[in-house]
Amino acid sequence: MNYKLVFRLLGRLLLMEAALMLPSLLVALIYGQGDALAFLETIAVTATCGVLLSQLLRTDRQDLTARDGMAVAGLSWVILSFFGALPFVLSGAIPHVVDAYFEAVSGFTTTGSTILTEIEHLPKGVLFWRSFTHWIGGMGVLVFTLAVLPRLSGRTSHLARAESPGPTFTKLLPKMSDTAKALYLLYFALSLLECVCLLLAGMNLYDALIHTFGTAGTGGFSNYNASVGAFHSPLIEWIIGVFMMLFGVNFAMYFHLWRREKEPVLHSEELRAYLLMVLLATALITCTILPQYPGFFDALRTAFFQVTSIISTTGFATADFNFWPLLARTLLLLCMCIGACAGSTAGGFKTSRMLLLGKSAYRDLEHTLQPRKVAVVRFEGKAVQESTLTQVGVYLSLWVALAVGGTLLLSIRQTDFVTAFTAVLTTLSNVGPGLNGVGPTENFAFFSPAAKLLLSLLMLAGRLEIYPVLLLFSPNVWRKN
Amino acid sequence: MNYKLVFRLLGRLLLMEAALMLPSLLVALIYGQGDALAFLETIAVTATCGVLLSQLLRTDRQDLTARDGMAVAGLSWVILSFFGALPFVLSGAIPHVVDAYFEAVSGFTTTGSTILTEIEHLPKGVLFWRSFTHWIGGMGVLVFTLAVLPRLSGRTSHLARAESPGPTFTKLLPKMSDTAKALYLLYFALSLLECVCLLLAGMNLYDALIHTFGTAGTGGFSNYNASVGAFHSPLIEWIIGVFMMLFGVNFAMYFHLWRREKEPVLHSEELRAYLLMVLLATALITCTILPQYPGFFDALRTAFFQVTSIISTTGFATADFNFWPLLARTLLLLCMCIGACAGSTAGGFKTSRMLLLGKSAYRDLEHTLQPRKVAVVRFEGKAVQESTLTQVGVYLSLWVALAVGGTLLLSIRQTDFVTAFTAVLTTLSNVGPGLNGVGPTENFAFFSPAAKLLLSLLMLAGRLEIYPVLLLFSPNVWRKN
Repeated sequence: MNYKLVFRLLGRLLLMEAALMLPSLLVALIYGQGDALAFLETIAVTATCGVLLSQLLRTDRQDLTARDGMAVAGLSWVILSFFGALPFVLSGAIPHVVDAYFEAVSGFTTTGSTILTEIEHLPKGVLFWRSFTHWIGGMGVLVFTLAVLPRLSGRTSHLARAESPGPTFTKLLPKMSDTAKALYLLYFALSLLECVCLLLAGMNLYDALIHTFGTAGTGGFSNYNASVGAFHSPLIEWIIGVFMMLFGVNFAMYFHLWRREKEPVLHSEELRAYLLMVLLATALITCTILPQYPGFFDALRTAFFQVTSIISTTGFATADFNFWPLLARTLLLLCMCIGACAGSTAGGFKTSRMLLLGKSAYRDLEHTLQPRKVAVVRFEGKAVQESTLTQVGVYLSLWVALAVGGTLLLSIRQTDFVTAFTAVLTTLSNVGPGLNGVGPTENFAFFSPAAKLLLSLLMLAGRLEIYPVLLLFSPNVWRKN
Repeated sequence: MNYKLVFRLLGRLLLMEAALMLPSLLVALIYGQGDALAFLETIAVTATCGVLLSQLLRTDRQDLTARDGMAVAGLSWVILSFFGALPFVLSGAIPHVVDAYFEAVSGFTTTGSTILTEIEHLPKGVLFWRSFTHWIGGMGVLVFTLAVLPRLSGRTSHLARAESPGPTFTKLLPKMSDTAKALYLLYFALSLLECVCLLLAGMNLYDALIHTFGTAGTGGFSNYNASVGAFHSPLIEWIIGVFMMLFGVNFAMYFHLWRREKEPVLHSEELRAYLLMVLLATALITCTILPQYPGFFDALRTAFFQVTSIISTTGFATADFNFWPLLARTLLLLCMCIGACAGSTAGGFKTSRMLLLGKSAYRDLEHTLQPRKVAVVRFEGKAVQESTLTQVGVYLSLWVALAVGGTLLLSIRQTDFVTAFTAVLTTLSNVGPGLNGVGPTENFAFFSPAAKLLLSLLMLAGRLEIYPVLLLFSPNVWRKN
């Protein structure tokens, strides 16, 4: 690892993080609930560290190797979460450091699992920062860096490999930095649209911003204990439900629409499969939960909201699905694992990977019948390389290994299998709530500090698509160039 | 599909099945509990169908295509189980046809899940047949056919592909039929050894045979409701525990030992990994359950028995692990999914596949750090083809898909996630018991007929390594040549 270069980049990220805390400081000052000082202190510390790292470490070698790229990706989220946790600790909102770190990781990784038991008592500046981390994390801190560090552009594809969700990352524009800017603009525009819709539906500006951040990053932190259910507004539920679905779509689709290219959108296999899953899951769950709700439209709205919330890996809730029939719960677990589209802010295994595995399996079955026929797997109109198919299989095994390993470790202290299992699935997929003890009306406060750190690691692994986090444990990465 | 040839082969299998029912008829006659007639009727019906199919369908084309091979593999288990269920129905032991079919499939697939609530009341001939199906199924009905139908030997490798457990099938002898005979001899010798040990430990001949059949086939049917726990004998527990472990080892190892070739055994990566898993799981579970048992050696023996029973996918029990701490239960679930070695009578995903996925993942992680380095995955001293790695990934996805799909379907009528989930895992891995509602002291009687058929299908899919069963649903297989 080129230590100087890597830590110089991390220093720049810290400077950016300090700047991104300014809106929260402003909110804290406006509401005057005593949390402004915590932000001032954090900004001072973060900016100082940032300046020290980025100015003192000068190096001639400006080219990132694959190893360095992985290290930057992995370390940046670990370190940003550390500094991001400071306002929670310094304001006294979350006194315990491990709890604060868990909450910050949950924010930046857009998971939305919380250790807070009484959210409404907290100062508004702290809650604003908590949700704002979703918005920052959603698009990926490294998309910022791609726009900020353009002179590394020749080598930033390593960063993109580490960061891009899913097996495909469509290069929409010839220059990486232009792509990043375009994606950022779309993200901003879609967020603005949701915020305006929520304002028009009767939310106040503060609540609208909080819930827009949570939706856009597919995070799921709310400033109410009852989550979106606190509003008791069908209109708001529909708006947020639709936007959760939209933020689960590959942003390349919006880019194509923006450029008035309809073909790639209409023929996207992943988009079709994703929307089909939302439709099917909503229909099945509506039928299943119908007896528990006063009318068909209540059941439909509640099913749609929960499905889009879970499949987009957001994690807002308007119902305690712990009390739903098993079929509905199992369907939600499945949505939780699959997640939404590649190239979106969502976590999970991703629809595109699932499709690739399905096509690969179908090809293999056909091959068994006709051993002499050579068939190529095609996806989104293009032939897929064999090495990509092997990699997707490897990704599935790593995913399963993390899920199994995490459940085993949580089993040491827990007594309920479903609580342990779904706590692991929901953090690994960056969703938020699970079932039983970590259900939508519960929280993660009862876990031991060790378990909270383990779950934080799973959130990071899920968000960074496993590789950069696993590689942080490899001595090879830490060896000096 | 070459219908004439396929059904001619199936006819021969039925003739063999009729012959294999003779020992059970003899047992029924000896004990005279009124079940002899049921066997006479079944043997008559089965033999008649066998003669009709094998004599009337004559065809000149004697070469099996891949399609035919898959069809024979899939259909033979479906049909053998159907005729194998007749003694249960005709004797009145299991009046309902679906229940009887479930029990027969569970027997032939060496699963050992039962729908019986009161086993001890049943006639001894029926119980003998029930356990004997394990022994038949254990080595694979098609190993018999490989020895019986030698003139198809040039083409039987298709059958072997469909039947061989795991990705590797070592051709030990140049001729397939010789390999089959050698394996059969080893199987018989190892069974005899266990039976003698059990007799010396104080079992009567009938019980010793029943439990030898259950161990050798890694099935797990016992003639007592309390399974092996009914004997209250530490010695018997150790004997069966050790033999369960031994029957989970690749039979090629025994063949090598027979020929005094130590090298392949000492250096087998799969064998090492398998024994290491048994050791680790036993050690961890012993520590976990220590407070629940009177002494260390009781805990150790109980842990060892349960671990070897589950990892070898046998399913005998001497303890109700439903009441064990969660860590012990989760470890057993993991053992359940992995299963034992390829080339053994065990079910599950297989240790060799797990190792291949692990090596493939490690290679991929290394590749991320050094993109220019080309690395080959090596297993058991040989380079593994890339296509094999892709296939193992595909197999994992099919396995996960079946587990998820099965759980979803069971969720329609069930209320407990763990019951539904572990019922699917235990049948797909051909183990026997699961957790909660299908725990070691429970049974599968409460499932609906549809659920029982679904679980039967999962047992068949698990036993035949998925492909032949899935392909039975493909119209391509049923198309006439």
